[in-house]
Amino acid sequence: MASNNRMSGVLAPVITPFNADLSPDAGRLARHCEWLLRQDCGLAIFGTNSEANSLSLTERMQLLDAVVAAGIDPARMMPGTGVCAIPETVELTRHAIAHGVGGVLMLPPFYFKGVSDEGLFRAYAEVIERVADDRLRIYLYHYTKMSGVPLGVELDCSLLDDYPGIVVGRKQSTCELANLERMLAAFPDFAMFAGTESLLLANMRLGGAGCISATANINPAAIVRLFDEWKSAEAESQQEALDRIRLFVQGYPLVAALKATLAHYG
Amino acid sequence: MASNNRMSGVLAPVITPFNADLSPDAGRLARHCEWLLRQDCGLAIFGTNSEANSLSLTERMQLLDAVVAAGIDPARMMPGTGVCAIPETVELTRHAIAHGVGGVLMLPPFYFKGVSDEGLFRAYAEVIERVADDRLRIYLYHYTKMSGVPLGVELDCSLLDDYPGIVVGRKQSTCELANLERMLAAFPDFAMFAGTESLLLANMRLGGAGCISATANINPAAIVRLFDEWKSAEAESQQEALDRIRLFVQGYPLVAALKATLAHYG
Repeated sequence: MASNNRMSGVLAPVITPFNADLSPDAGRLARHCEWLLRQDCGLAIFGTNSEANSLSLTERMQLLDAVVAAGIDPARMMPGTGVCAIPETVELTRHAIAHGVGGVLMLPPFYFKGVSDEGLFRAYAEVIERVADDRLRIYLYHYTKMSGVPLGVELDCSLLDDYPGIVVGRKQSTCELANLERMLAAFPDFAMFAGTESLLLANMRLGGAGCISATANINPAAIVRLFDEWKSAEAESQQEALDRIRLFVQGYPLVAALKATLAHYG
Repeated sequence: MASNNRMSGVLAPVITPFNADLSPDAGRLARHCEWLLRQDCGLAIFGTNSEANSLSLTERMQLLDAVVAAGIDPARMMPGTGVCAIPETVELTRHAIAHGVGGVLMLPPFYFKGVSDEGLFRAYAEVIERVADDRLRIYLYHYTKMSGVPLGVELDCSLLDDYPGIVVGRKQSTCELANLERMLAAFPDFAMFAGTESLLLANMRLGGAGCISATANINPAAIVRLFDEWKSAEAESQQEALDRIRLFVQGYPLVAALKATLAHYG
């Protein structure tokens, strides 16, 4: 799924099973990862829908250790490692690289709002300099709805200028096609992931890399099929079928709906 | 400054001095705390203007250790301890209580937006149950502009019902007097802190407890004087004088302006 050291394809922001005491359940997480991989769906663990920002630093690292120990291929993982404090983002990122992950999906520091692109550049640059590892591959995580911190085009320009081959892609969590078009026109070499499978076909036609979508947790096979066959004559109707399922799921609180679905069928 | 185990008065969200390598400078922080206390200004360390959410968990705890070791009275401190992950909020809060702080200023988990009051109640309740310490005094930290997570009246009602004597106050970071009025009408026993000295006189007249304001870092004596003399005939003109200084400072990026001022005079 990687070409030129870039990840591509369909990734699920893997939902995290919790025990009654709110601790994460590593065994059930590993089994869900295994099921996703069997359908060729990559693993964006520790994303928003993984509720990773409700886990402590220690819990996140122990969970990654456990999932890798259970035999899940780290090369298919793109864990979220961006938190509010640079030292902790560095620690999570180094830990993930040591496990041999395919890349990391990095939120900006998200407590302070109204930060300039220059300020955000310095935050990302500081992380890159401290991690100081050629294996680092960063996918910028743009999700203003939750982070409240938009990543502008200027930021990507500066990062690509200074860290080519390190900052390699972006997850654009938006439902607006125009945003993907604008970003891909500005950065044709970026591995651009749509944040919903509703934009998967459009993103591929624009030269994008795939999608990272919550519903891939329950519907991976069909989404992966569209990724594999997006140049085929059936692509349009496949996209329409995916859209109908997505529309249905979106009628519910997303994480709860995904978990209920998996509990029912799993 | 405490009555019935409630804190009151003027507190500064103490700005944090950083070294060139972005590590916090405990020695300079302790000296600044000392200077503030000499003017009877309390210490809301690890607040927004302290840039605490850019510090790692370890840095925050070591910094508190160092400042207490330097002789700064913990009873005059109201450290911020609310972060995104419940286990870490619990750890920071326990650590602060062990030092004998006067109270803690607690943000809600702030990554996920659109959380219901019921969800926020469960997050705060979980922290309180896990900390499980009679000495715990929580001041709710409402600052939607940064956290993106408003704390509604319903939340305060539920918390006060279930945890009276533990949830004892609130910092209302808003410039709207109507919000303070509404909250104090609903919760007359709350120790209500205005988030700006511009509302100090109004807040005291409404039955509030004082203010926690960034500009107290550079102008503590005059703000404390208004707190001490708010019933006097000079209160109005004191308030007007404070407002003029605040208006001037607000023309600059706040944390940078405060630090430049202290560097110049300190």
